[in-house]
Amino acid sequence: MDSKKQVSRINRQTWHFAQDVRLQASAVAVGPKEGEGPLAALFDKIHDDMYAGQQTWEDAEKQLMEDAVTMVLQKAKITEKDVDVILAGDLLNQNITTNFTAEKLAIPLLGMYGACSTSMLTLSNAAALVNAGYASKAIAACSSHNATAERQYRYPTEYGGQKPPTAQWTVTGSGAGLVGIGGNGPRITYATMGKVIDMGIKDPFDMGSAMAPAAVSTLQTHFQDTGRSPQTYDLIVTGDLASVGYPIVKELMLKDGYNMEPVYNDCGLMVFSPDQDVFAGASGCASSAVVTYSYIMDQLQKGLLKKVLVCATGALLSPVSYQQGHSIPCIAHAVALEGGI
Amino acid sequence: MDSKKQVSRINRQTWHFAQDVRLQASAVAVGPKEGEGPLAALFDKIHDDMYAGQQTWEDAEKQLMEDAVTMVLQKAKITEKDVDVILAGDLLNQNITTNFTAEKLAIPLLGMYGACSTSMLTLSNAAALVNAGYASKAIAACSSHNATAERQYRYPTEYGGQKPPTAQWTVTGSGAGLVGIGGNGPRITYATMGKVIDMGIKDPFDMGSAMAPAAVSTLQTHFQDTGRSPQTYDLIVTGDLASVGYPIVKELMLKDGYNMEPVYNDCGLMVFSPDQDVFAGASGCASSAVVTYSYIMDQLQKGLLKKVLVCATGALLSPVSYQQGHSIPCIAHAVALEGGI
Repeated sequence: MDSKKQVSRINRQTWHFAQDVRLQASAVAVGPKEGEGPLAALFDKIHDDMYAGQQTWEDAEKQLMEDAVTMVLQKAKITEKDVDVILAGDLLNQNITTNFTAEKLAIPLLGMYGACSTSMLTLSNAAALVNAGYASKAIAACSSHNATAERQYRYPTEYGGQKPPTAQWTVTGSGAGLVGIGGNGPRITYATMGKVIDMGIKDPFDMGSAMAPAAVSTLQTHFQDTGRSPQTYDLIVTGDLASVGYPIVKELMLKDGYNMEPVYNDCGLMVFSPDQDVFAGASGCASSAVVTYSYIMDQLQKGLLKKVLVCATGALLSPVSYQQGHSIPCIAHAVALEGGI
Repeated sequence: MDSKKQVSRINRQTWHFAQDVRLQASAVAVGPKEGEGPLAALFDKIHDDMYAGQQTWEDAEKQLMEDAVTMVLQKAKITEKDVDVILAGDLLNQNITTNFTAEKLAIPLLGMYGACSTSMLTLSNAAALVNAGYASKAIAACSSHNATAERQYRYPTEYGGQKPPTAQWTVTGSGAGLVGIGGNGPRITYATMGKVIDMGIKDPFDMGSAMAPAAVSTLQTHFQDTGRSPQTYDLIVTGDLASVGYPIVKELMLKDGYNMEPVYNDCGLMVFSPDQDVFAGASGCASSAVVTYSYIMDQLQKGLLKKVLVCATGALLSPVSYQQGHSIPCIAHAVALEGGI
């Protein structure tokens, strides 16, 4: 396939996709707690236990990602052989969920890692590859699982460690999106790739505060690079700042002249209802992924939302870096989705 | 920046870079053992101890990557402000070396993970972004450190665990390359992105055997997609198959009609000399990176090599997946570098 394409880098951090690049299909698989939340009716598959029919939590997480990707293929009426590349990542060491899923699907893999920003890291790069003609169809996917994340990042869940109210609840789920040229899905028009921002916060039980400045950096860069404002969008979501980080972003943005009202929300506040006992709210790769690939996709397709900016936020720490006294480096990547065009 | 570019996907897995995309500069920093190996004279910086002036091995690995990237900028006579994006990864959990290095440099980060294939995963995607106009200048970088890898993947080094002769020695080092349009460096002409291949091998002390089929898959795909043969190149290297995996690739390729003699070598056999007591040879992200970004770059620039194919190999297991009884999924990504054009 040889083709001439118009692509553009409108500024250092923001890509514009001039081709008719679209999110052609998306799918979401989640665990039981997510299936009791306010978005349950929009999720494609809800497993009724944390093992998702597998022997280990790690295998359950693989099942979730495989579910999400398989359902995307079914919705688009294609098979894995029609997909040129999968860009995917997860929270487990060595991206293991991703590696086994890509092996099973036999789709060429570009492994990516951006902690909880991985949803938009993979979607933006999938769009970039399709826009430039490197792939006809690309899948972006990511996952997280509450129990695998708890034992890897914090304590074995059996330990029953207490948490402060600033802590968040890792979403058990996976979301996947199919990116291609044309079709009926929302267009992917811009992506703004984030810098790593580290404001010196060291408390791994307060990721929202740590990640907020990274979200602010990427959001402001996006508006500057595109000439857009918060009011260009009828919804702007951050990934998983939850009740601690969300007001910080609102305040910091306003201080710099960006009024985020009334379009701003956070996926960490959308996955669970407040009575679900999730501390400050949801977190994990799957937080932004399950919201984007279910609710946001649904609203864009129904015309109830026209322009949405998803700014996925990631805390790039490791348990070792935290134990060695380092602060938490954070990042955010943003993608603009536009329906009805 | 708006521009029309010709890009192409010549087949499902292989990208062709039609623009004048070049490896404009490269640099390598290594540890003391690598500094006693046969390529020592070509390394830009050799640290005389494993701590590289830092307090922990993890901080030493960061120092290595920061060294490599900083030296690339110096060689190219540019600053970090001139670089649009860094694509990087390492072997440590949560890509932590990469995250801290990108934070310090304040360059937008695309975090990638392909285990020891990360060198060519990042270089191929950097070339793709530059070729399509998403970035003017992109840096690809990766690192590994023997002591950080040993304690994360195997045993604390103080334990002094014995190893079989099929085991390999993780390279302490980092390599970085600057990709841009034009200049005097070798052209980056093709990249072949690998699929995950899992032949059921479960022994983490025999990565060479596990990774060989992934290398064969990517090499054969590369030749089929490009119409090239092994003899198109005057050097083909795999990343870190070492003395166990190297003959397996040679044999499997020959069986399918690809005679790899006399152009084939393996970076895992090039970093150390046989008397350096490294079991089957070198491994790690840095194995292919330090060879590509020192020796291969040097030979291409001097005209002593004309066409080189670097096929970096990665074992995508995690300590948890191994302990849970899973086999080792592997991948390989290949990049063609061409001098004198």
